[in-house]
Formats: sequence, structure tokens, C-alpha cells
Amino acid sequence: MDTSLRVVLYGVGEMGRIIARVAFERGLNIVGAIDVDPWKCGKKLGELVGLGDDLDVIVSRDAEKTLSECRPDVVLHATTSFLDQVYPQLIKCARVGADVVSTCETLVYPYYRYPELAELLDEYAKNRGVSFLGTGVNPGFLLDVLPAVLTAGMTRVERIKATRIIDASKKRRSFRRKIGLNLSLEEFEREAFRGGVTGHVGYAESVMLLASIMGVDISRVEEFEKPIIAEEDFEFGDFRVGKGRVAGIEGVGRGFIGDGEPFIEVRFVARVGAEEYEEIVVDGVPRVVWRSTGVDGDLATAGIVVNMAMKIVDAPPGLLTMGEMFPSYVSSRHGLKRRMVF
Amino acid sequence: MDTSLRVVLYGVGEMGRIIARVAFERGLNIVGAIDVDPWKCGKKLGELVGLGDDLDVIVSRDAEKTLSECRPDVVLHATTSFLDQVYPQLIKCARVGADVVSTCETLVYPYYRYPELAELLDEYAKNRGVSFLGTGVNPGFLLDVLPAVLTAGMTRVERIKATRIIDASKKRRSFRRKIGLNLSLEEFEREAFRGGVTGHVGYAESVMLLASIMGVDISRVEEFEKPIIAEEDFEFGDFRVGKGRVAGIEGVGRGFIGDGEPFIEVRFVARVGAEEYEEIVVDGVPRVVWRSTGVDGDLATAGIVVNMAMKIVDAPPGLLTMGEMFPSYVSSRHGLKRRMVF
Repeated sequence: MDTSLRVVLYGVGEMGRIIARVAFERGLNIVGAIDVDPWKCGKKLGELVGLGDDLDVIVSRDAEKTLSECRPDVVLHATTSFLDQVYPQLIKCARVGADVVSTCETLVYPYYRYPELAELLDEYAKNRGVSFLGTGVNPGFLLDVLPAVLTAGMTRVERIKATRIIDASKKRRSFRRKIGLNLSLEEFEREAFRGGVTGHVGYAESVMLLASIMGVDISRVEEFEKPIIAEEDFEFGDFRVGKGRVAGIEGVGRGFIGDGEPFIEVRFVARVGAEEYEEIVVDGVPRVVWRSTGVDGDLATAGIVVNMAMKIVDAPPGLLTMGEMFPSYVSSRHGLKRRMVF
Repeated sequence: MDTSLRVVLYGVGEMGRIIARVAFERGLNIVGAIDVDPWKCGKKLGELVGLGDDLDVIVSRDAEKTLSECRPDVVLHATTSFLDQVYPQLIKCARVGADVVSTCETLVYPYYRYPELAELLDEYAKNRGVSFLGTGVNPGFLLDVLPAVLTAGMTRVERIKATRIIDASKKRRSFRRKIGLNLSLEEFEREAFRGGVTGHVGYAESVMLLASIMGVDISRVEEFEKPIIAEEDFEFGDFRVGKGRVAGIEGVGRGFIGDGEPFIEVRFVARVGAEEYEEIVVDGVPRVVWRSTGVDGDLATAGIVVNMAMKIVDAPPGLLTMGEMFPSYVSSRHGLKRRMVF
């Protein structure tokens, strides 16, 4: 008998297709696929993801029909970054009793940007006995969950700085478009205004997710992002950026406790040709500094989505965050949370 | 009203005294202290740990009496490395309904070296409604829990190598004695035979704990340790090692799945003057490499003991491992565990 998880893929964009390949490779049973793109609808998922007849599932535009026919255990969801757009899609999944693991960045800590939608989702999930989870590597792991884990042995935490630097030229097309790569500054600003360029979404979500795992009350959050302008024409691999055009973006999210220095600072840079790494510095006792040689974001996001899909079926119903998947190291029961910080 | 955790310190050796200071600083309510050392018994814990009258607790030799009078929520246990010696002490704690967080290295994964004692402990804990946990940074976090956490985004794990290098001259006296620092080779071998030199305990425990979190079946474990001999006289800080004498130890633990290369390899080096760092390499998809600038082991072990003490009061009864405190990323429910590895 087939013990593998029944999953429906909701969103067959570039990220969704990577997730599909990973889910297939990991032995999940992909029973349906949903996308709004007319060009994809009616096609075999296997063709779209380069698996041919091994993945003999037809992409459908009709979410309700697909979900009610396929009855998945879990929906692997990868459509857009913003919960207000994603919300109705999540409700459809819950209606058929499916858990959802989503790459929607603002769902990683929905209580920050969409507190009312978050409450509604939690209520709805509990009524239906399903779980919702927003995840990914950034936000969702590298700059929030992992720094929290690294405090496991610390007796005092004074400040957390987490940085991720990636080479934008290596990223999928949809990401390059999202950060306005190779646009002029005017084009960038116009596209940013139109919503064609969203930049990276999730600075504040990482700050708030990390704070929630640490059991720390953040009084103020700020986030900024700006384009990096090429100072001369340059080529990188098959990639060309003209002088004065956008070679990447850099952004920061900060979480404050009262005034003064931020308690949490997350930094993200996506620049053509950048040396890739992550660095996590936790000032406190004992001080902790860890640095990586870089993590392939798309693949790791697909990996964490599939890994969490296998976990979420055993999770309690409701709107979950990665904080529930990775428990806090500071128990709330004795009201000592704050001692860890001050 | 005082909401802080009531704890008894079981073992007032060097590690126990560091734990006492951290527990005090974190606002835990230290209500008793136990030690067999006649020199310490009857003394104020505050004097022994440099906190004077702020820690007005008398160290007692009588464990039963102290435990039944103090009725702690949690016992912070730091006596010896070997579960057969520690077992009766744990039972005494359970009798008064106290959870125990212990630095006993073989308790970190007791099913490997003491499977029958582990079963008995689990039974006993469940009957009494208490929890036992063995923890620390090594074994217990750096070379086992943390590598498992770093696989969260991986779609395939082929091999895990985790290394910890420390400067033995910076470590507490009891540790230096344990690794036979500055002994001649003959003295080292005699002391190793007598049990005065135990070396580092926990290679196999790290291998098995990591494997258990990953949901991987290890078919064979091996562990080796050997002294590092100084090739010439040298001084390091206040520390002097004569030529031909023991300047440190290096050891390794390996876990195999069938034949061939080990799936897990943990390495530990404690050498006078060594550059301190940890490095975790996970071969697979995507490959993950993280390196630290070193973690203060004694302080971080005290930190993790106190952090886990605040967590264990909310944990289910039984013999726990750090694997229960840090859940696996690969659900067992769908029998896909092995896919992650092969």
C-alpha cells in the first residue's frame, strides 16, 4: 500500500516547479496541480517540470474542483508573497481538509502585516482541523529560526545580527524580475510603484518570527530596501548589467525593544556577482558567531516546504509559524523570558 | 509572588558551580545543593560559587533529605559522565517528583551504552510523572542537534561531518585532568586504565542522537580517541607542557549505514593552544557548510542546562533526549525517512 503523502501543488511558477521536482524525488504522491496561467492549464505537470510522463497530472485552473477531487493531505502552495491575495486560496484548501505549507513570505509571520487575516485564518483552520504554515529559507529559516536555535546555550542575549548575501545572477528569472535587475533607476521606481518590482519580502517577518521564538516583545520594527546601482557596465557569466542600472538590492529589517540599538537586525543583499554567505552573530554570553558558504535559496526553500509538509500532518490544527515547528528555548511558564534579554 | 523555578543543584563540582552562577543570574530559585565532597558539605553554596550571602543555601551530603525537604521543580544535575553511577541519583530525584536536567554525557543518548538502564529510567519517569534529560553542548548540541537543524532545508542528506576544536589550556581543571593534560604517555596510560583519565565522553552519543533526530538507522558505531603528544617543550599562557607529554586529545565517532563511508562523523580535538572553532559540513542537496568562531563549552553547557530546565517543566514525562526538545524535520508517519538519506 502507498504510504506516501498525497499532495496538490498550488502554483506552478518557477518556485512551484522546483517544489514539484523535490516532492516527486522525495516520494510524495502528487495528485493534482493548480495554476491560473492559461498557457499551463491543461498541460501535464511532468512536461512543465521536466519529468515527462513520470508526473502524469494535468494542471487545472479550477482550484475547488481539483482540491475536492484530489483530497490531498497537504497542499504545497507557491503563488504570491502577500497574504491578502493568498487568503482565499488557503480557505479553499482548508475546505477540503488539507493542511497547507506555503512559500507566501508574509504568511511566515502573518500577525505583523495582516493581524486580522491571521486571526481569521487561525479560527478557520481550528474549525476545520487543518494547519497552515508559511515557510522558506528567507524568511522562515536562515535569518530567524536558525539564529534562535543558536541561542540554545546562551545565558544572555544582547543583540542578534543575521545577514544573507546572494548572487542575484544565479537566481530564477521571477526573482530577478522581482528585484528589478538591470532596470534603469526610473524604470525601477516606476515598476516599484506599479508593483512589478516588489523587492525582497520578509524583513519584518523574519524580525518578528525570531522575536516570537525568543519570547521577546518588540516595541518597534523598521525595514528598508534600496536598489544597488552598477557603477560601470559589467558582465557576469551570461549576465550583463549596464552602468547606472540596477545590479541588485540591499535591505534591512530591525526590531527594537524600547529605544537605542536594535535587538534584532536582519540584512539581505542580492547583487549580481556577490560572494554568497550567511552570517549570524549573537552578542551576549557566550557570544556566538556562525558563517556559512551560502545556501541555495530556491532548492532549500523547496526542501523546507517538502520537509515541513511531512511534519505538518502531525501538527496541531491552526495557523502555525516555524516557531511552533521549532520550540522556544525559553519557557514562558515561569515568566523569565525577559531575563534572557536584559 | 515568586514565579521562578525551584531548583536543587546536584553536584557542586566545577561544572555544577558554573551552572549555579548561571541559574542564579537567570533568576531561578536555588533551594538546595548536594555534593559528596566532605570539604564542601556544610558550606554555603554562595561562598563556593563566589556569590556570598546572595546564595544562602547549605551544601548537604544527604540527597534524600535535601530533595524531600526542598521539593524542587527541577534538579540541575552535574556529577559524573556514566549513567550506571548516575542512575541511583536520578531515581532519588524522581521520587520527590522533580524533573532532572543533567550534564551526564552518556545520558544524552542513553539507549546506546546503557539500553536497559534507559528502559528502566523511562518506565520510572513515566510512573512518577517526571522527565529526565541529558544535555550539554558536546554531546547535546553542537555536533548532533545543530547539524540536524541545519538539514531543515535539504532534499537529500548524504553525509554529515561535525568538528569541534578547543584550546585545552582554557578549560576548567577537572576537564584538563580528565584528558590527562601534561602527563607522560606512561602516566596517561596508567591513569586511563585506572579511570582517572576518561578522555572526552560522548562521541557515540552524538552520533546516535543525531541519527535519531534524522530518523536514520545506524548499523554500526565506532569511536576512537588518542592523546596528542607535545613534540617539544612549550608554554602557552600560564600553561606549560613538556616535550613527549600529553598536550591534548583527539577523537572521532562514526556512524555507518551498511558498509562504506560513515554517514555521520563527529570529531573533537582538545589541544593546548589550538585555534577554537566548530565546523559542520552536510553533503547532499543543497550542500551546507557552517563554521563558528568557537563556543565557550562550560558556559554554554551551563546555559543549555538552565534553558532546558525552564523548558522541561512543560515537557511530557519520560526519559527525553534533545531530539524530543528539537523535533525531527523528517516525519516518520509516511515512512519516507530513508528517502532523505539515499
